[in-house]
Amino acid sequence: MTTTVGILGGGQLARMLALAGAPLGLRFLVMDSTADACAGQFAPMVVGDYRDETCLAEFARRVDLATFDFENVPAESAQWLADRIPVFPAPRALAVAQDRLAEKTLFRELGIGTPDFHAIASRADLDAALDAIGAPAILKTRRLGYDGKGQFRLRSHDDADAAWNDLGAQAPSVGLILESFVRFQRELSVVAVRSRSGEFRAWPLTQNWHRDGILAASLAPARVDAAIEAAALGAARRLADALDYVGVFALELFDCDGELLANEMAPRVHNSGHWTIEGSETSQFENHLRAVLGLPLGSTAARGVSCMLNWIGALPDALPVLAATGGHWHDYGKSPRDGRKVGHATFRADDGGTLATVLGTVGAALQREGQVTPVLARLEEAAS
Amino acid sequence: MTTTVGILGGGQLARMLALAGAPLGLRFLVMDSTADACAGQFAPMVVGDYRDETCLAEFARRVDLATFDFENVPAESAQWLADRIPVFPAPRALAVAQDRLAEKTLFRELGIGTPDFHAIASRADLDAALDAIGAPAILKTRRLGYDGKGQFRLRSHDDADAAWNDLGAQAPSVGLILESFVRFQRELSVVAVRSRSGEFRAWPLTQNWHRDGILAASLAPARVDAAIEAAALGAARRLADALDYVGVFALELFDCDGELLANEMAPRVHNSGHWTIEGSETSQFENHLRAVLGLPLGSTAARGVSCMLNWIGALPDALPVLAATGGHWHDYGKSPRDGRKVGHATFRADDGGTLATVLGTVGAALQREGQVTPVLARLEEAAS
Repeated sequence: MTTTVGILGGGQLARMLALAGAPLGLRFLVMDSTADACAGQFAPMVVGDYRDETCLAEFARRVDLATFDFENVPAESAQWLADRIPVFPAPRALAVAQDRLAEKTLFRELGIGTPDFHAIASRADLDAALDAIGAPAILKTRRLGYDGKGQFRLRSHDDADAAWNDLGAQAPSVGLILESFVRFQRELSVVAVRSRSGEFRAWPLTQNWHRDGILAASLAPARVDAAIEAAALGAARRLADALDYVGVFALELFDCDGELLANEMAPRVHNSGHWTIEGSETSQFENHLRAVLGLPLGSTAARGVSCMLNWIGALPDALPVLAATGGHWHDYGKSPRDGRKVGHATFRADDGGTLATVLGTVGAALQREGQVTPVLARLEEAAS
Repeated sequence: MTTTVGILGGGQLARMLALAGAPLGLRFLVMDSTADACAGQFAPMVVGDYRDETCLAEFARRVDLATFDFENVPAESAQWLADRIPVFPAPRALAVAQDRLAEKTLFRELGIGTPDFHAIASRADLDAALDAIGAPAILKTRRLGYDGKGQFRLRSHDDADAAWNDLGAQAPSVGLILESFVRFQRELSVVAVRSRSGEFRAWPLTQNWHRDGILAASLAPARVDAAIEAAALGAARRLADALDYVGVFALELFDCDGELLANEMAPRVHNSGHWTIEGSETSQFENHLRAVLGLPLGSTAARGVSCMLNWIGALPDALPVLAATGGHWHDYGKSPRDGRKVGHATFRADDGGTLATVLGTVGAALQREGQVTPVLARLEEAAS
């Protein structure tokens, strides 16, 4: 019998899941609020709001199980579905990941370091928390943060008024959290997968670079020492086990002089794992599907060294990427829009030196030196 | 602007082309005579006969260029399309590959060795050719042979009556050819690609094993010495240049004590190149699309050693394949049918010894020892 996997959200993650699932003999149905969602180019769609029970019911009727390309599906919609069909990850994991306070509280319970944080319900809470944590700090909404939106950075206590003016109105509805601003050397992520049977695997650590709060570049395997790798993978495993998590997830970490602080988890396949398509034995997309279907997980071993560059807003010229040895192009089939993730490229090589040469050439050809320079610096530092 | 690639034929090759083309930002339209063709699960379709000009016209109107998943599209249909839109490979290459006599004549002109052959138009021709070539020999139809159909093997001149009874009626229509039966040590194939700009690349040689005239297993890179590799790649290049060929093609060769004899060419992506999806830097499917679009070709370097096993008739249990390190499952989404290619698996490892261990385990688990034994023997022989 053919299995149909339903995906809530029809963006590039759903699209890459469908492409990865085809060889497994799977069919897909995508639900999205917009008819031109890019996953719809390769999978049938139900177009409708996640809160529309008529649409949800049609979706549930036509699929064998459901998963997510988008973590901010309303918790009630996820629960409505979970009452009717298998849903992975379970709504509880989604709920924790949607709420910065619940997420960081869980990290703390599991012995996973985090930046210091306080729940903020009032202006008085903000003052008290600033006294406790000190500046700089970041005031964030507890829910529905996405790519840096809903955040206010306070350089000193003097910014409290401005921060409260910006976000205070959201305190009663979505809630607020104040987090200490940590000075980190590196941003790392663990992309890992846990299956319905509890099998756990993680890809090698990835180092990430953001610009304007959006991922710009990733390098994997990250050039870190074994102790950091082991600590990061151990944290991811404790988190997955605690949530009885099923599927792929990412844990974003700050490396502060060798101490790892967890920033957040993403309960889905993750942008910092896109390199796994060409750079590892089994991609995050295929292993997510294997996990939610209860199939054995594939090897997460890296094949050589990979760098992913995100294309934000509009695609650059594809030719220098296609002409590069080990250059792989990913166009999501979206129309250009400011700040929108419209594609990425992955460069894979057998060693860091070769990768650096390729990246240097492509960066110059695309006039993207700014995007590749930190990756080149890291490769050079690791080689020396 | 989004480019839509039309594919004539909607089988697994079209399906894998569409899956490989999605990251390039391509859209696809598949034309097939049956509505349930498996490529239709991931691409829109025009359902109709290749000779139906109304369907062809609709197809031509909706695509920017066309290519093939099936080489036996009628030459007139291919030409009708080529008069209206770009078609790759060109109808001439298709016509040569469709006709065993034209194909082997071209091989001979290019200095590419072939089994001895004679055109057969009458029973008297058959007798004369048997006298010239000697037995054993194979009488074949010139056109529309597929997976061993339309062939009669003559062990001695005494079989001439039976052969003529079986195939003689086709002499005036599709034509016949008598070929000497060669005793070969190995079946090899070159899978290669030539782009619109004349750029040429070949993947490492593949060794193939057939059962009942259908490919059962492939091993790549084939364990052959450099002289054989160079001769095979040189032959493929001469052939591609002579035909001004655009796209991926396969050249099937017999290795007779180090002398290579060309059996046939397939003017399309080829079953013996399926291992390139996981086993090389760029798959045959992606490079075919790059070639027909005039884009730079991707690296054809192998990544480790790969073995592909074909699933004929029905799929075996997927679990031992998914549980194997480097095991990759490919279900074409077809219903089972005797002799039908319904899927394949590729096993990739960094070295031959690891690959042999994995194949031995999977072969035993699936009770497919017969399918993996010749591959294991070859890996062992190459290691010693």
